[in-house]
Amino acid sequence: MKLATLNDGSRDGQLIVVSRDLSQAHYASGIAGRLQQVLDDWGFLAPQLEELYVGLNHGRLRHAFNFDPKQCMAPLPRAFQWIEGAAYLNHAEVLHKAGQADSAWEPPTEPGLRQGPGDAFLGACSPVRLASEAMGIDFEAQWVAVTGDVAQGVNAAQALEGVRLLMLANGWTLRLLGAQDRFHSRPLTSFSPVAVTPDELGASWRGGRIDGALQTMWNGRKVGHCETGAEMSFHCGQLIAQAAKTRGLRAGSLISTGPVSNQDSRRGYSCIAEKRALEQLESGQAKTAFMAFGDSVRIEMKGADGLSVFGAIDQDVLALNEASEDAAVPA
Amino acid sequence: MKLATLNDGSRDGQLIVVSRDLSQAHYASGIAGRLQQVLDDWGFLAPQLEELYVGLNHGRLRHAFNFDPKQCMAPLPRAFQWIEGAAYLNHAEVLHKAGQADSAWEPPTEPGLRQGPGDAFLGACSPVRLASEAMGIDFEAQWVAVTGDVAQGVNAAQALEGVRLLMLANGWTLRLLGAQDRFHSRPLTSFSPVAVTPDELGASWRGGRIDGALQTMWNGRKVGHCETGAEMSFHCGQLIAQAAKTRGLRAGSLISTGPVSNQDSRRGYSCIAEKRALEQLESGQAKTAFMAFGDSVRIEMKGADGLSVFGAIDQDVLALNEASEDAAVPA
Repeated sequence: MKLATLNDGSRDGQLIVVSRDLSQAHYASGIAGRLQQVLDDWGFLAPQLEELYVGLNHGRLRHAFNFDPKQCMAPLPRAFQWIEGAAYLNHAEVLHKAGQADSAWEPPTEPGLRQGPGDAFLGACSPVRLASEAMGIDFEAQWVAVTGDVAQGVNAAQALEGVRLLMLANGWTLRLLGAQDRFHSRPLTSFSPVAVTPDELGASWRGGRIDGALQTMWNGRKVGHCETGAEMSFHCGQLIAQAAKTRGLRAGSLISTGPVSNQDSRRGYSCIAEKRALEQLESGQAKTAFMAFGDSVRIEMKGADGLSVFGAIDQDVLALNEASEDAAVPA
Repeated sequence: MKLATLNDGSRDGQLIVVSRDLSQAHYASGIAGRLQQVLDDWGFLAPQLEELYVGLNHGRLRHAFNFDPKQCMAPLPRAFQWIEGAAYLNHAEVLHKAGQADSAWEPPTEPGLRQGPGDAFLGACSPVRLASEAMGIDFEAQWVAVTGDVAQGVNAAQALEGVRLLMLANGWTLRLLGAQDRFHSRPLTSFSPVAVTPDELGASWRGGRIDGALQTMWNGRKVGHCETGAEMSFHCGQLIAQAAKTRGLRAGSLISTGPVSNQDSRRGYSCIAEKRALEQLESGQAKTAFMAFGDSVRIEMKGADGLSVFGAIDQDVLALNEASEDAAVPA
């Protein structure tokens, strides 16, 4: 099934079920008002939402309405745990080679993870407001798993059973704040309008990987068309098991793959930093500038049927307007 | 006022108001069921809770009951943002000198911050279950501010106005996992049974610092009696402003001070790592071992009147029982 959250002015929004083709929607309010509620009690509530979803897909629901991604918050507008992973090692390898040419690249045997802020995610079409272009504004096209409860010490196969929903994400990154300043350099994350259960991907969901292509457009120009499956060095279950090594994870934890990256550079890039690293390696100099205010980025994945699976992240980067209330508090 | 959360089997528990002397309590259910609700709508709900608190302190509430910290979850059992700060630079200095004797100590001009997991906090009297003593189990006695909404780019004075509640915390740390493995080395955090509004501290709440003494007992022996005020290098408003540099914070964000630490080592220590560093500096060798299964730690702060302000964190460290359900998922 496909789920989204309408912006009703509240902090957690209003949960809706969205039809497979993303054309229609229906309030889930008879079942649950907020997505976190569903994750907290998945076994009881998810089957009820599934039933609603089937009715919606068959056009049987009298109160269905047109789905508009612009009215959406992130499917989970705030989360109790937001873990940024690094599942595509080609990305790390390219950046390592461009940055530290004197030391050999040694691929890590376990995925790197770091905690991020879960208090204020951005909706797919919300503008991103940032204080200065000089911080080196970059996007990171990736995908994300939402977990149920995961016990401490599970193995990767068990961890994979903890995946409840999948989404796309754009990890906004401020590259020029310096690699040491991780806290400030990863301020905001945006999510696709729709979160989907893994069964929506059919055969493309395989062993904790999605066989698909993640398309990234920057100012209307396609810059990335990266395969998400074959070159995913650590699958979703491995990411989750790594996160659950010394503690259990509770329902509604999010864990991301990091920017999708392929060895064949003709597939383009999912973040500007990787493009700049490739330029550095080729010509000794990075040429592509980071983003400017007014720039837009669009991230989307299409299924085997050519239809958008998660809807598109489609955002503009704006200067932080200090006088404006919505700029002061990202929402 | 003083607030706590009773364990009723749900993930967010049941909000209660606790009397100033921590003897009596009353359900807040007519006003709000969960503490996050109050933080989301502080201006409307906090005055109603204050009224209940006044009635409770005057013995006017017919349905008041005896307060039992053992029935408590963390005041906020899960949070959308958990930031670990480092406000007491003496701690960092001692560890630096013991670990890197060859490089000079340069105190940072801004407080270091890192994000932690907010999905599963421990109650004050909950046992801590960990997989292995070989990970170097340590406590970190500290205190924590809970914020309201804080705008991006505020200064320290503005940020200080964002403080809603204060709590004590114990940051469980696995020292032998290595400084590089931050993700796994800081798995769990416990909180005092009670969260208090800053006015409860009276004149001891001064410029974003608490003038008080944080007492730490390890296996019944007092090992720390550290002053929290004078040597706090960055006050609470500075910590919050630092966190809000490139993004706003939403209500219910938690930010900690890191272990309380004093230059006068006769005041003892708030974490074993600091004691070991001092031993290293004095005799060339750390002598104090990290914690063993069965050990206990008790953390408390008493007010000018000699009464406990937040109630005590009082926990045992237990081996993770793989067969036990409550061990699998910390709650």
